[in-house]
Amino acid sequence: MSRWADWLAAEAASREAAGLRRTLRPRPAEGATTDLAGNDYLGLSRDPAVVAAAAAAAQRWGAGAGASRLVTGTLELHAQLERELAAYAGQPAGLVFSTGYHANLAAVAALGGRDALVVSDAHVHASMVDAVRLSRAALEVVPHNDVDAVAAALDRAGDRRALVLVESVYSVLGDEAPLPALAAVVAEHDALLVVDEAHGLGVRGAGVVASLGLAGLPHVLVTATLSKALGSQGGAVLGPDAVVEHLVNRARPFIYDTGLAPPAAGAALEALRQVRARPELADTVRDRMADLAAALGVPPSAGAVLSVPMPSPRAAVAAQAAALAQGVTVGCFRPPSVPDGISRLRVTVGAGVPGADWDRAVDVLIAVVKEHG
Amino acid sequence: MSRWADWLAAEAASREAAGLRRTLRPRPAEGATTDLAGNDYLGLSRDPAVVAAAAAAAQRWGAGAGASRLVTGTLELHAQLERELAAYAGQPAGLVFSTGYHANLAAVAALGGRDALVVSDAHVHASMVDAVRLSRAALEVVPHNDVDAVAAALDRAGDRRALVLVESVYSVLGDEAPLPALAAVVAEHDALLVVDEAHGLGVRGAGVVASLGLAGLPHVLVTATLSKALGSQGGAVLGPDAVVEHLVNRARPFIYDTGLAPPAAGAALEALRQVRARPELADTVRDRMADLAAALGVPPSAGAVLSVPMPSPRAAVAAQAAALAQGVTVGCFRPPSVPDGISRLRVTVGAGVPGADWDRAVDVLIAVVKEHG
Repeated sequence: MSRWADWLAAEAASREAAGLRRTLRPRPAEGATTDLAGNDYLGLSRDPAVVAAAAAAAQRWGAGAGASRLVTGTLELHAQLERELAAYAGQPAGLVFSTGYHANLAAVAALGGRDALVVSDAHVHASMVDAVRLSRAALEVVPHNDVDAVAAALDRAGDRRALVLVESVYSVLGDEAPLPALAAVVAEHDALLVVDEAHGLGVRGAGVVASLGLAGLPHVLVTATLSKALGSQGGAVLGPDAVVEHLVNRARPFIYDTGLAPPAAGAALEALRQVRARPELADTVRDRMADLAAALGVPPSAGAVLSVPMPSPRAAVAAQAAALAQGVTVGCFRPPSVPDGISRLRVTVGAGVPGADWDRAVDVLIAVVKEHG
Repeated sequence: MSRWADWLAAEAASREAAGLRRTLRPRPAEGATTDLAGNDYLGLSRDPAVVAAAAAAAQRWGAGAGASRLVTGTLELHAQLERELAAYAGQPAGLVFSTGYHANLAAVAALGGRDALVVSDAHVHASMVDAVRLSRAALEVVPHNDVDAVAAALDRAGDRRALVLVESVYSVLGDEAPLPALAAVVAEHDALLVVDEAHGLGVRGAGVVASLGLAGLPHVLVTATLSKALGSQGGAVLGPDAVVEHLVNRARPFIYDTGLAPPAAGAALEALRQVRARPELADTVRDRMADLAAALGVPPSAGAVLSVPMPSPRAAVAAQAAALAQGVTVGCFRPPSVPDGISRLRVTVGAGVPGADWDRAVDVLIAVVKEHG
């Protein structure tokens, strides 16, 4: 055996022994279960108008953008999507990327640097963590949602420009960042707050930042995804013109990547219009969240993800399997994949699930949480 | 002004002073010029069957995958695309990503690590460079296409597992890597050769690796993009089953990203079938390359990109502008964006340009290179 074959085999054996081996399970077009695990929060990926917009964009603009955005890969479709996204979120400018992961890589790596300090909430997304490494900036990780710790870290920034990385709504716990207090601390320290609205935009209307009156401030930058509430693919940075101009010139995952495919851009644009025109979608998420949280005896979350703590990793897995056996797919998080060490079910409360399916899924979840919780 | 506004303004002024400010130029659906700058090498992004496949995939699977590949975001469509890509390239297994950039980030970061050595050709793509930083591996950059330097670097690897990063066909110069010699050196050293086929797959049929009989070897891994010859969006890693299994479990840009959007996956799958069924597409690129290179008095390239050296940055810019004034868009590369310090035009020789437009573009290029070259 070669060194590489040995190493890959040893890594696989180590995952197997720890019970951490993951496998892909391809699903058919029409799922056999009610999906309460994905992030298509408003059901827009299957919305007829959104699907038609994807098809129309392919017809009009082609299946791919054909080049980097700085060569011939910027379409008027991208520019329109950027304008409407920025306008919706209350921001001066926007820039669209091929994935939300790239939006975070681009923003943090291009704004960071050896002469910068990044202060990161302990629960931010993997793309933010990778972005910091790419940026070469000094990093201070602070306890989750701890505004005093952010202030203390910024006190130590000295002459360095400083970025503070948070999410508006966190993916696993579903809790919300204390954005007004964070924005105030960041302003006092002449720093920049980068808020990932992956789980906020659309689910919380124009986003949590906008709903709190923090949109359009020069010290608050938003990143977002087009692949969750907007049902498509891609990401965006929304904020000051000078930041967008900087990213166009300096963000490697923007400069050296093919532009977002037209069907994805067209679908996201139509989904955005649906979100604006149909506030009842976000209302449905909020109402279902309140009902399900009450039924399961846990606090409702700030977005579309309900976190249901379980007494043990084994109980969480058993509850997930019991739900699946009754036709309901939910997420299951165990150490080391949970930020706080607590095993839990992660239940997506989506507006796209038909009413009868939703009611049945709630009954199933009440039963399995009662048995295993 | 705040520290951030100051810094952004200073950065912008510095770019402006260096003549390096880049701006986006959104284009309409029907370009007014002949595009010899993009990477839609076979014209498949506008192929009717590919466009129809994008639309059909949106209808059947939705506009987005809705979740991470490891949650509910793996579709049978992804699995089918992975099987057919791997089979075409002569590899045991394949894994699809949301962009080609991510394929490189994923492969190198998940296979690297503090205990690994990366030996990188000096001309590899930005995504490879970023990938090495994410991997935390030790890095040795070797001169371009220098097999002896690769061997010498591998001699210094000691007990470390080592990766060698190259491209089959390079993007700016259009030249080819000495893959047989590299593969032999890598095998001798029990290392792993990672070959980015972004500019090879499709343009060179099943890819340069396959055409040289190097596909399916345990020490040769291929990365590829779906956004160039395949006219769509996305990327892929093609190689041993054990590597794909490792990436599924360890590659953060795979695990923490939404699955590739169905329209992009469907379009890429149809484009792959077109490439297989119509070898005349790649033949057209090869024939046009030979004709244009002879007409301009430069050596033909190994792929679809013809590099035309110019005497100065100013001459390159003037030639590009003169071509554009006559309706032909070509790329222009100047220091610091060229790997060898030589300013040049970058001319994409695509199969999708209609014959009359191509002939006219050749006449324009002969004239502008004669005047400015």
